[in-house]
Amino acid sequence: MNSPDRIEEVLWESLARMTREPCPPRLAEALEHAVFPGGGRVRPRLVVAVAEAIAGGVAEAPRAVALADAGAAAVEFLHCASLVHDDLPCFDDAEFRRGRPTVHTVFGESTAVLVGDALIVGAFQVLIGAATRDAAAVRMLALLGDAAGSPRGIAAGQAWEAEPSVDLVAYHDAKTASMFEAAVMMGALAAGAEPGPWRLVGRLLGEAYQLADDLADLSSSAEALGKPVRQDSRNDRPNAALHLGMNGARLRLRRTLESACEAVPECRGRARLLGLIEHVGLRLLTAAEAGPVVVESAAVA
Amino acid sequence: MNSPDRIEEVLWESLARMTREPCPPRLAEALEHAVFPGGGRVRPRLVVAVAEAIAGGVAEAPRAVALADAGAAAVEFLHCASLVHDDLPCFDDAEFRRGRPTVHTVFGESTAVLVGDALIVGAFQVLIGAATRDAAAVRMLALLGDAAGSPRGIAAGQAWEAEPSVDLVAYHDAKTASMFEAAVMMGALAAGAEPGPWRLVGRLLGEAYQLADDLADLSSSAEALGKPVRQDSRNDRPNAALHLGMNGARLRLRRTLESACEAVPECRGRARLLGLIEHVGLRLLTAAEAGPVVVESAAVA
Repeated sequence: MNSPDRIEEVLWESLARMTREPCPPRLAEALEHAVFPGGGRVRPRLVVAVAEAIAGGVAEAPRAVALADAGAAAVEFLHCASLVHDDLPCFDDAEFRRGRPTVHTVFGESTAVLVGDALIVGAFQVLIGAATRDAAAVRMLALLGDAAGSPRGIAAGQAWEAEPSVDLVAYHDAKTASMFEAAVMMGALAAGAEPGPWRLVGRLLGEAYQLADDLADLSSSAEALGKPVRQDSRNDRPNAALHLGMNGARLRLRRTLESACEAVPECRGRARLLGLIEHVGLRLLTAAEAGPVVVESAAVA
Repeated sequence: MNSPDRIEEVLWESLARMTREPCPPRLAEALEHAVFPGGGRVRPRLVVAVAEAIAGGVAEAPRAVALADAGAAAVEFLHCASLVHDDLPCFDDAEFRRGRPTVHTVFGESTAVLVGDALIVGAFQVLIGAATRDAAAVRMLALLGDAAGSPRGIAAGQAWEAEPSVDLVAYHDAKTASMFEAAVMMGALAAGAEPGPWRLVGRLLGEAYQLADDLADLSSSAEALGKPVRQDSRNDRPNAALHLGMNGARLRLRRTLESACEAVPECRGRARLLGLIEHVGLRLLTAAEAGPVVVESAAVA
């Protein structure tokens, strides 16, 4: 099974544990709505891609890949949780996400709050299950916590939007870069490597992703993006493409991706990983013109 | 330092890690508002009381007590998170809690959602920190996850309130009993004991607490309780005192507490632990008449 299919399978298995009896039926339905069908699954695929670049594929390094899969499910659950809460009326008040009605639009606000809560918990549970077998999972859990909470995780990142004065660097760092850093470093830990040298790769990929998201918000259509556009100016949020201009932001995106490639440490699957980053980068640049920020499964099959 | 003071100190230390730079200032303020001053701290005190009953106090068993303190902070963070989300306009729409304005009333809904998110993450972080030093913390983390998420944790419990048809047993089990079970079993794990024999104690204490809460909702005044009363009938929620009558519910509360005492396994500090349970029980019974469900610090100092 290729890694994107394996990630979907791990997400299904983990979600099945959360939605089994005695889970309230509407909550179960809403949890599934929040996780499937997915978007680009960019963060979980990074976890797996880095682990495989260091340790090899599932045939050569089954333990590393299994641990990376758990990490992948964890980061995706957290990401989905942040989207569900971010779409709530008290935040972006978004009606559509990934081309479908948002969780609160279908299931109501209270269920949407609880879907986010349960997915945050579920993210930790996936890795706690792995931690009973593998000590590296405890270090992956620590990275996950840092990237999810406060002072420098997603919760803190979203909270900057409610501050009277925004620290722009801290905002993007916490809202986007921290989880990309965690994803890449969790992949390294799963493969038995020290995560430190990988931090910069994650940081730069997070910056590139944020730039692409800012560009897409300004230049895409809602149909192509599957969610409302012009949200940043509507919600008075900082947007790099507004500050730098479209061409300036595209240039910076291209340079940030090049820097990310240069930062990838020496490892057995380095060339293949660079290919993946370039492919994702191409999609990001294209998305900055017209389409949603997705990565097609076939490309890293 | 006695254990209630120690719990406050661990909560302060853990919160300080979450609110340090670069935490958004309003989020930091709101997080503190959510955790301090506390209510009865019943769940965290159970964690510590069980650990000390099995292993002895801080002088005799410093490792066990430190681990219990981390578990105590974790369950209290989760409890505070559930209160903040439960008070939101899309749930109970409560303006007061512990005699003060609720988090969303002071800081707005979006910050309140993120305070809950960050506290859920923070609960895991406290124990993840301990897990790098002590393998028992991984099992405590697993209990915490089960008691917090879905299908049988607090998130699932609250979600029953949004279902068209409520499974009453599953509702109380998930919303209240699961966290009391986890608290008692985490105390046992911290002390190096097998948690299984302690499950029933937690379950029965959770049931007693729910009964007292139902009684208080019907019989207390808002001034005494520090939060609005008659919330259950107002929100069309199940209430045992409505089903059994006030006297029937009081009788069941008394019997449930007796069963909890009988269920306490043999251990060196059993007599002292029974004293604490009886003291808490007396407070619960009193609260069922007139006052808030709190346990005074002095009693277990």
